[in-house]
Amino acid sequence: MVDRTLERRDDEGRTALAVLGSGGAALARHLSRRRRWDPLGHDRPCRTQRRCRRRPGGHGPVGGPHPAAGAADGRRGSATPLVPSSHHRQENRVTTTHFGARLAEAMGRHGPLCVGLDPHPRLLADWGLPDDADGLRVFSGRVLDAAAGRCAAVKPQSAFFERHGAEGVRVLEEVLAGCRERGLLSVLDVKRGDIGSTMLAYAEAYLADGAPLAADSVTLSPYLGYGALRPAVDLARATGRGVWVLGLTSNPEGAQVQQVGSPSVAARVVDQVAADNAGLAPFGDVGLVVGATLPATPSVLGLDLSAAGAPVLAPGVGAQGASGADVARVFAGLTDRVLVPVGRGILAAGPRPDDLVRAVTTWSGQLRRDLAPG
Amino acid sequence: MVDRTLERRDDEGRTALAVLGSGGAALARHLSRRRRWDPLGHDRPCRTQRRCRRRPGGHGPVGGPHPAAGAADGRRGSATPLVPSSHHRQENRVTTTHFGARLAEAMGRHGPLCVGLDPHPRLLADWGLPDDADGLRVFSGRVLDAAAGRCAAVKPQSAFFERHGAEGVRVLEEVLAGCRERGLLSVLDVKRGDIGSTMLAYAEAYLADGAPLAADSVTLSPYLGYGALRPAVDLARATGRGVWVLGLTSNPEGAQVQQVGSPSVAARVVDQVAADNAGLAPFGDVGLVVGATLPATPSVLGLDLSAAGAPVLAPGVGAQGASGADVARVFAGLTDRVLVPVGRGILAAGPRPDDLVRAVTTWSGQLRRDLAPG
Repeated sequence: MVDRTLERRDDEGRTALAVLGSGGAALARHLSRRRRWDPLGHDRPCRTQRRCRRRPGGHGPVGGPHPAAGAADGRRGSATPLVPSSHHRQENRVTTTHFGARLAEAMGRHGPLCVGLDPHPRLLADWGLPDDADGLRVFSGRVLDAAAGRCAAVKPQSAFFERHGAEGVRVLEEVLAGCRERGLLSVLDVKRGDIGSTMLAYAEAYLADGAPLAADSVTLSPYLGYGALRPAVDLARATGRGVWVLGLTSNPEGAQVQQVGSPSVAARVVDQVAADNAGLAPFGDVGLVVGATLPATPSVLGLDLSAAGAPVLAPGVGAQGASGADVARVFAGLTDRVLVPVGRGILAAGPRPDDLVRAVTTWSGQLRRDLAPG
Repeated sequence: MVDRTLERRDDEGRTALAVLGSGGAALARHLSRRRRWDPLGHDRPCRTQRRCRRRPGGHGPVGGPHPAAGAADGRRGSATPLVPSSHHRQENRVTTTHFGARLAEAMGRHGPLCVGLDPHPRLLADWGLPDDADGLRVFSGRVLDAAAGRCAAVKPQSAFFERHGAEGVRVLEEVLAGCRERGLLSVLDVKRGDIGSTMLAYAEAYLADGAPLAADSVTLSPYLGYGALRPAVDLARATGRGVWVLGLTSNPEGAQVQQVGSPSVAARVVDQVAADNAGLAPFGDVGLVVGATLPATPSVLGLDLSAAGAPVLAPGVGAQGASGADVARVFAGLTDRVLVPVGRGILAAGPRPDDLVRAVTTWSGQLRRDLAPG
């Protein structure tokens, strides 16, 4: 019955939404049953493998010296390949453990640091790298190497890859594969948001097993309503992935949207996130983005974060002015669930691999101390 | 002075924003002067040309029959190349005439129809095409051929290209080049939105001369505040391009954000758009996305569209239920500035090229009549 309805109407996304509404697991089963609707090659061999057959040499700069072994001044030269030759062992298919549990496990082991992978043209220049796809590739490889085993997650900022068109997006694919290889959770910062079948297409682009750009989690923007993000929320749940929905950000312009009304727009988003996270422990798979440099605590601003059951991504630490102590104060009582992205604060320490490692280790230790319970 | 400040701080985007704030033309001059900050290869030879040297055969399926000349049943087979061999004559650099004027000229000549290029997997299947980059390429080529010379603009939906990762984004580059070749304005539907240097990176990705994904205009999402979109608004103006900011959409979930408060979130967006369009005739380069299937007219919902000086992109016509007459009623008095995207309503007529042409012609004529003044 559902199948026949989809035959007629899935190009509208409405029926797909109905299926999604009845539970992501049903959707996942549905997607895997239907060849014609197989959104991103679930049944095909690993895309990376297929690509490698076409492109001898595989992804990334191969044969460059290991960053720890040479290139003493750290400028130019290659890092380890973004995706090592062993990468076919790791498919872009995640466990069925829900994302909140996977994140809690990673944060328990490595602390709250999330390295922000923002290959800004100015940083590329500072590192002596060209502002092109090759520069992105070397830059990203060094950052992932420094992050591996030393933090819970990495947050690549899609905009800096999209600047270089398809060639940049190819590097982003490699970054996501490189995160999987290194045991780093990926928080792909794309801030997508749309409706209906288009939102489902974004979900398939970033949250489906086997998708070239599949990440462990992505950021989403709810201007079209939190409910419009449903296809992503449900597909994430069905595949053990997560989403981070923009809630209340620190930039001054945000108030004209997020803090309007009573309850505010942001508070309404938080309440809807809470409903989706109900019953998931230690926290859910629908995260919230809440700025670390807010002028007051979220509760003063009307957000009931403690009831949301959501992990919190708290940008603003490091070069943007906030410290770990600020995060601890703003998110008092919730620090077990706050993931803290630090980009420039770490990236500015490059390009030398050992300097990057030192910056990651320093930030990791500091944040772990600042956000320790009690 | 500005240069030295940028040396120190442009990785934060703050100085860049300050430059932008002082006028997009200053930014454009600035970008073109500085090699190190040259964001997307303004000084390099045409990227397409460079790519073509590396990839013999160039973009798109070459050598397939012209769609009008063969493939009688329209299934499988090739369309004309997305980017014909003459494409090097057209650089992705636009005139300095502002986007509002260019759009008005195109709509005056061709009417208000904008063909929605939404290569949904279901449509690909209906057309007998594979759900991969090759399928996207053939599908898109046929749509552009049917649209060329028969409508003002084409709106590719990025999500359906992103589903296929870098290979899909490569096709999107070709689509944008194909629009330029065919004299079709592109409205790239990406709904991007971020802050600071990240927003600037998105602007450079889609609105800079020479960018691989440069479009005539893009859609933006203002959840982080309209003001946060400033880098895109200013770079668009500096390069003769445009933006379309989500205002008030028709999907029911949108009200929880857009209609909150008094004045509502959407009304605040409209007022800020009005300020940016002041003085531009016949309308400005900052457009608004306002649904054609709203339950009431924009003015009843608190939006002063007549003062916004904005072109309006009004989705919802065709398969989503609204007619040209609905558009004329909702946007009474403003129909000279409404661009009407029709996607599935036209795409469902495929895959035969002449059926597509007929659908485009029919919709174009109907909308022209429905939205005629008086």
